[in-house]
Amino acid sequence: MSEGFAEEEYRARVAAAQARMGAAGLGALLLTAEADFRYFSGFLTRFWESPSRPWFLVLAAHGDPVAVIPEIGAALMQRTWVRDIRTWPAPRPDDDGISLLAEALREIGGPVGVPSGPESMLRMPLDDFDRVRRDSGLEWRGDAGIVAALRSVKSEAEITRIRQSCAVAGRAFGRLDEIVAPGVPLARVFRDFQRLLLEEGADCVPYIAGGAGPDGYGDVISPATEAPLAEGDVLMLDTGAVKAGYFCDFDRNVAIGYGLRPQRDAHRRLIEAVRAGLDTARPGALASDVWRAMAAVTGTAQDEGRLGHGLGMQLTEGLSLTARDRTELHPGMVITLEPGVVTGPGRIMVHEEVVVIRAGAAEALSPLAGPELPVI
Amino acid sequence: MSEGFAEEEYRARVAAAQARMGAAGLGALLLTAEADFRYFSGFLTRFWESPSRPWFLVLAAHGDPVAVIPEIGAALMQRTWVRDIRTWPAPRPDDDGISLLAEALREIGGPVGVPSGPESMLRMPLDDFDRVRRDSGLEWRGDAGIVAALRSVKSEAEITRIRQSCAVAGRAFGRLDEIVAPGVPLARVFRDFQRLLLEEGADCVPYIAGGAGPDGYGDVISPATEAPLAEGDVLMLDTGAVKAGYFCDFDRNVAIGYGLRPQRDAHRRLIEAVRAGLDTARPGALASDVWRAMAAVTGTAQDEGRLGHGLGMQLTEGLSLTARDRTELHPGMVITLEPGVVTGPGRIMVHEEVVVIRAGAAEALSPLAGPELPVI
Repeated sequence: MSEGFAEEEYRARVAAAQARMGAAGLGALLLTAEADFRYFSGFLTRFWESPSRPWFLVLAAHGDPVAVIPEIGAALMQRTWVRDIRTWPAPRPDDDGISLLAEALREIGGPVGVPSGPESMLRMPLDDFDRVRRDSGLEWRGDAGIVAALRSVKSEAEITRIRQSCAVAGRAFGRLDEIVAPGVPLARVFRDFQRLLLEEGADCVPYIAGGAGPDGYGDVISPATEAPLAEGDVLMLDTGAVKAGYFCDFDRNVAIGYGLRPQRDAHRRLIEAVRAGLDTARPGALASDVWRAMAAVTGTAQDEGRLGHGLGMQLTEGLSLTARDRTELHPGMVITLEPGVVTGPGRIMVHEEVVVIRAGAAEALSPLAGPELPVI
Repeated sequence: MSEGFAEEEYRARVAAAQARMGAAGLGALLLTAEADFRYFSGFLTRFWESPSRPWFLVLAAHGDPVAVIPEIGAALMQRTWVRDIRTWPAPRPDDDGISLLAEALREIGGPVGVPSGPESMLRMPLDDFDRVRRDSGLEWRGDAGIVAALRSVKSEAEITRIRQSCAVAGRAFGRLDEIVAPGVPLARVFRDFQRLLLEEGADCVPYIAGGAGPDGYGDVISPATEAPLAEGDVLMLDTGAVKAGYFCDFDRNVAIGYGLRPQRDAHRRLIEAVRAGLDTARPGALASDVWRAMAAVTGTAQDEGRLGHGLGMQLTEGLSLTARDRTELHPGMVITLEPGVVTGPGRIMVHEEVVVIRAGAAEALSPLAGPELPVI
């Protein structure tokens, strides 16, 4: 098993998909994106980084999945639970698996559903997509949100994985004093923090973000610059480290040398907002309820960004904690609580933790930070 | 400038695209994928790891590009050369930038070209794509291969970046003796090698692969296992490390303790094949000519995978060194030479280097390995 879950885990996922496919009148589901493909197959590789080859997994309304994949992936796919594996020597631009895929789809029958809603991506060239739709002779539709809905509620095996990733990052955050000091360029902190994450057991670090300044930071998506840290700065580091195919996504703020009063106040308010989010994040609550609980503490206005999101095989997935998102919380959903406060003109501070929705109160998967801004 | 190239670099790229758009009869190009988006804008962030928000860049047949992006990216986009920046508070699933994008496209006028050929990906939900096509009221087509063609020939500024990334990996490979020894699990080597790459200056390590065994390795896309290295193994490590937005992609083989005769012979043959590839990789030669020169040395049959590929903002991009690919080489193309030999049933050894096509002989960008298999 490539990804390491038991075969029953994948069979349960496929059975759940098939129940919904029946209700939606779909004969097949075509999956092309990494996370969707892995969710049902267990096929785990970093080779998706190469855009040269498409990968196709077809779920049938009845029976087992069919993998239509480049030959280079056959050995790894044979170590998953998928038995029907059909390969071609990719890349072969004039027919990159398209005739093979069309044939598999004709055997299975339509209508064919393709993930088409929010966050979905078709990982194959549009020309080839048009061609396989035509060559299959079948009816094509969206997937009625089936894949996203299934993925949004995690199994205990998945929750364990996310907890492990969070533990990796928690240990790395615990060693920040090894890499953070006045005069150290932020770009160096970014590199060193990725190193710490690897030392603590991450398989890879697909995402890191952060910022620093005496009055907060400007945004949280820019690459680090060579600007050195200074005493009085507050530094935020945010990570999406991966272990065994599952992400963590949480951050820590620390003050360099000493914590300025506005930083410390902002940090306390952020932690209070997380607490309010935690108290609200229960089955039956809506994503917007959790947003509202946190926004009340931080004074966040509507449309001022989201204050958290789903998490799992992708850094962000599923619901958004916004004023508009009316997704209902269910046990097993893993979400981040990510309040932000404005600390100056164009400056912010943010804090983020990871929790799983349980029958009662939510359970923290990241080691919750205390209200006092730590000083290094 | 977020990515750090001069504004003239981006203006030259846009002008080249516009010349081709004119010839193809396109009024606009819509770019949604990270590398295409960055190629024309310079917008560099690891935030693409989050699938929640789409990003749109529109090139007009005349005039400057228009960025239609989530608000969270405005600050960073303002540091690029792009001046026309339109934002919305994403994610907003009921209208995730679609009305804003349709409006921008209507202003610019069609037909709208979208990258649709080999390796291209539409990074937005299909439902939204259908909607913007309908709402724009314009004609839509493929991009006639314009973006891929432009990206395949690198500027000197881009070549310098790739050379720097290769130098980072070269220094990390030079320290393999620090992390490789009998008894060390391969998974640990993978983690430690990523750490070395970061220490040597990589911004991030999106890709790593490898394998080990006395008679070669099984495949080169599987995640590392906890199986320990043993004396007599040959270990291969392959990396796609990134510095300032550009990839390297090359590997090294080393013998653990001592090199077995068949390993050493295979390694010599691989280096000989790289030499043959280097000698052939000149302007006017076809990708298939370079494949043939290397395949003659390694005894590779047609359809036995590709022996190299283009490289740049993505780990693999553009041409493939296969028996079928008749792409003509031009100065400025950066490619890998990646011959493989079969070393046993289901076992292989591979070697890879990075070169840039020049007016005369190709120039190596990675530090070329010698014929003798190194021993650690």
